[in-house]
Order: sequence, then C-alpha cells, then structure tokens
Amino acid sequence: MALHFTSEQRLDDVLEREFTLGEIPGILWTPASAPAPLVLLGHPPLGLHKMYPRLVARARHAAADGFAAATIELPGSGDRPRWAAADQARADLRRAMEAGEPVSEEIIDALILPLVDKAVPEWQAALDALLSLPEIGGPVGYSGGVISIGVRLAVVEPRIVAAGLFAGSFVPRAMFEEARQVTIPLHVLLQWDDEGNDRQAALDLFDAFGSKEKTLNANMGGHTGVPQYAGDAAAQFFTRHLK
Amino acid sequence: MALHFTSEQRLDDVLEREFTLGEIPGILWTPASAPAPLVLLGHPPLGLHKMYPRLVARARHAAADGFAAATIELPGSGDRPRWAAADQARADLRRAMEAGEPVSEEIIDALILPLVDKAVPEWQAALDALLSLPEIGGPVGYSGGVISIGVRLAVVEPRIVAAGLFAGSFVPRAMFEEARQVTIPLHVLLQWDDEGNDRQAALDLFDAFGSKEKTLNANMGGHTGVPQYAGDAAAQFFTRHLK
Repeated sequence: MALHFTSEQRLDDVLEREFTLGEIPGILWTPASAPAPLVLLGHPPLGLHKMYPRLVARARHAAADGFAAATIELPGSGDRPRWAAADQARADLRRAMEAGEPVSEEIIDALILPLVDKAVPEWQAALDALLSLPEIGGPVGYSGGVISIGVRLAVVEPRIVAAGLFAGSFVPRAMFEEARQVTIPLHVLLQWDDEGNDRQAALDLFDAFGSKEKTLNANMGGHTGVPQYAGDAAAQFFTRHLK
Repeated sequence: MALHFTSEQRLDDVLEREFTLGEIPGILWTPASAPAPLVLLGHPPLGLHKMYPRLVARARHAAADGFAAATIELPGSGDRPRWAAADQARADLRRAMEAGEPVSEEIIDALILPLVDKAVPEWQAALDALLSLPEIGGPVGYSGGVISIGVRLAVVEPRIVAAGLFAGSFVPRAMFEEARQVTIPLHVLLQWDDEGNDRQAALDLFDAFGSKEKTLNANMGGHTGVPQYAGDAAAQFFTRHLK
C-alpha cells in the first residue's frame, strides 16, 4: 500500500504530517535529526481525533529523544467504516459493566481477537511504507495501546526490537500463549488501580512473556493517571534499545 | 550516642570515612558538594565487610547524584556481638530451606521482628549523629536492605521522606499492618525470579502500602541480579524526592 501525505505542520522542531495508507489515516512525527529510529504509537480504539492530544504529547516526547513516531487509525474507529461485530462486542461489554457483571471470556474474545487479526497486518503495512522513507532509519519500537496488538506484533514482526506495553485492556486467554513466544525486551506499565483492568490478569500476562529482559513498572492511579516519571522510564527504555 | 571517625580515604571525588556510633561500626560517604542530602544504605545481615563491594558501588552512584550515603552494621552481624536467638532463627531457616519445606511464619517472625526492633532505633540514632555534621544537609532517604526495617523506619522516622525498598527478604505478617501506615513516596524493586523470596507476598506488601505515590519496578532474574537500569531508576526516584 502506498503512503500519501495529506497535510503537514511544524510543532517547534517536530514535523507533523498526516497521511493515508490506502484507506487508513495516519500521522507521522519526525524530529530534526534524520534518519531517526521509529516508535509506533499504539492507542485504544477511540479514534485518532479523540486520541490526538495524548498522541501528540507522546510524539513530542519521542522526538525530543531523537525518535520519529507514527500511528494509524484502528479498524472500525474514527472515520474508518464501522464494523458491526465490533460494535456488538462493545455494546455487550458496556452492558456487562453497567450491570456490574464480570466480563465474560466470550465478550473479551469478541472484542479483542478480531481487532488484533485486522490491525496487525495494517501496522506491518504501515511499517513497510514508513521504513522506505529516507527520514526513518530504524530500529523500530512499539509503544502502548491495546496490549494484545502489541503482543501479536512482538511475535510476528521481526523489525520491532523492543516494546513498551500498557497493561490496561482486556486480554483474551489465547494471548497468554502468544505472550510466551515474545522474546524482545519489554517494558510493561500497569496502573495499580485501573478500574477497567484485571490486575491479576496483567501480572499473569507479565509472568507469561518469554522475554529474558522484561520490566513491570506499576504505579498508583487509574487508567489515564500514568505519572510523568513512569512515562520518562518508558522513554528511557526505548533510548536503551533503539539507539 | 557520639559518632567518632576512625579512618578516612578518598575514592576519586568521594570521601569515605569509617566511624563508630557507640559500639556500632558504620561508614559514611560524602560527595564534593556540601551540604548534601543523605541516603541511608540498608543491607542484609551478612556483615558490612562482606557487603562492602556492593555498598561502595551504591554509595559512589549516590555521590555522583550529589548525595551523601551512610550505613551501619546490623545487630548480631559482622564484628558485633552474636545474638543467640538470631543465630537460632537463621539455623531454623536454613534447615527448613535445605529440607525443601515451606518457611513457617514462626521462623520468619523470629528471624525478622527482633532484628527490626533492635535495628530501627540504631538507625535513628545514626541519623541524629549524621544530621549534626555540617556536610549533611538532608532531606533523608532510605534504600534497600531488609525490607521490614525500611517499612518500620518509614512509619516511625519523619526525617525519612522517601524510601527505595527491595522486596527480597521474608516479611512477617505483622509488617503488612505497618505497611498500611506508610505514607511517604516508595520505589519498590522486585526480582521476579528471586529464589528466596515469595513473589505473591511481595505483591501483597506493595498493595498494602498506604503511600499515594508508590512504584513497583519488577525485573527478571534472581536476588542479586538487579539490572543496572533498575538501579538507575531507583536513583532517579531519589533525585526526584531529595533534591
């Protein structure tokens, strides 16, 4: 798939360019220094527009460390075509949570597995296109977002050499088996009091990862309350592995 | 108790002085810049002489960050008078571990609680003496060693404003109640595969701490395998809180 830039603006020293990759919208941020290693910025399926403030903050932090950063819209989110099964899974999730019921494995599987299956090849296609740009040199890291997408990418995509994961979304049982196949260095953030997250499942997933180098960085607070020093620690992880 | 210096040597920019505090031996390391904040270096009850290589490495790291560092011998360790009950508790522990038996709460209590009761007032006396030196300015942090000593100090000693704890020693049940009373910022290191440590107990203790700011930094490897980047993260924690 070809990458076409559709807009550009300067944010101080950072060049921000929106692009399309086939039908998929995305954003690339590049620092003044080139060629730069690349960090793929994962995000929850809430739409790039809604996530933009947090994404641009992470991209500027990455650029200050000398990294390019890029992200693409997830399937079924933002301006991309809706997807009936995903909408149904989200409605089932909402209903279970509002009723105070435990979220069943069936709901988690329906919510996450098709998203992983669709999204991962798209991120790989984005990587093909981004790595052909002269301002992107590699190596590549993956950061944040839906943790199951990060796990699958870490298993299937050899160009990703390090991953900073956020243990903040539901994890299908099947992903624990994939986690054992991960061997790249990992830095896993866990918000200890994350309302929508199963802490024990997050600890079990961390235990399952096959990587020899893995760090769990757990901090107080809810899903969106990651303290700045935890973000700094994740940035240092990428500096250790992408430079 | 009066502090008397008994020897001194220069290690590059760091001044290392041995001292006695009453009958208790100790070591103080001070950086070129004064007055400096102070980090108390905890250690396991194996004797200062045996622990010296790791202690001096930690002290030099602290001095490079602008901190003084100090430590004292634990009761019953090194050249200090033996202590029959502690020797008995260690023999019971060794016997249980060699037999592959679970270590009982009675053994853990006998091993740790008297040590905490004796050691904590000594560290507080050391603090009185060290803070009266012109080259020590405060604030004070406590780092590593027997985690129950760190917990008790964090509860009873208001001059300690931040603690970096190492979840690597047995924890009596009674300490979980004390942990709830801790309110200072904490940075807790956990070696995920620590042979002699109960991982679930370490996670439960982390959960119990009353502090609003607490970070769990878990890494792969055994008791003595703390990776350098985890040491760096602990150092950054003290820089955030003691500067």
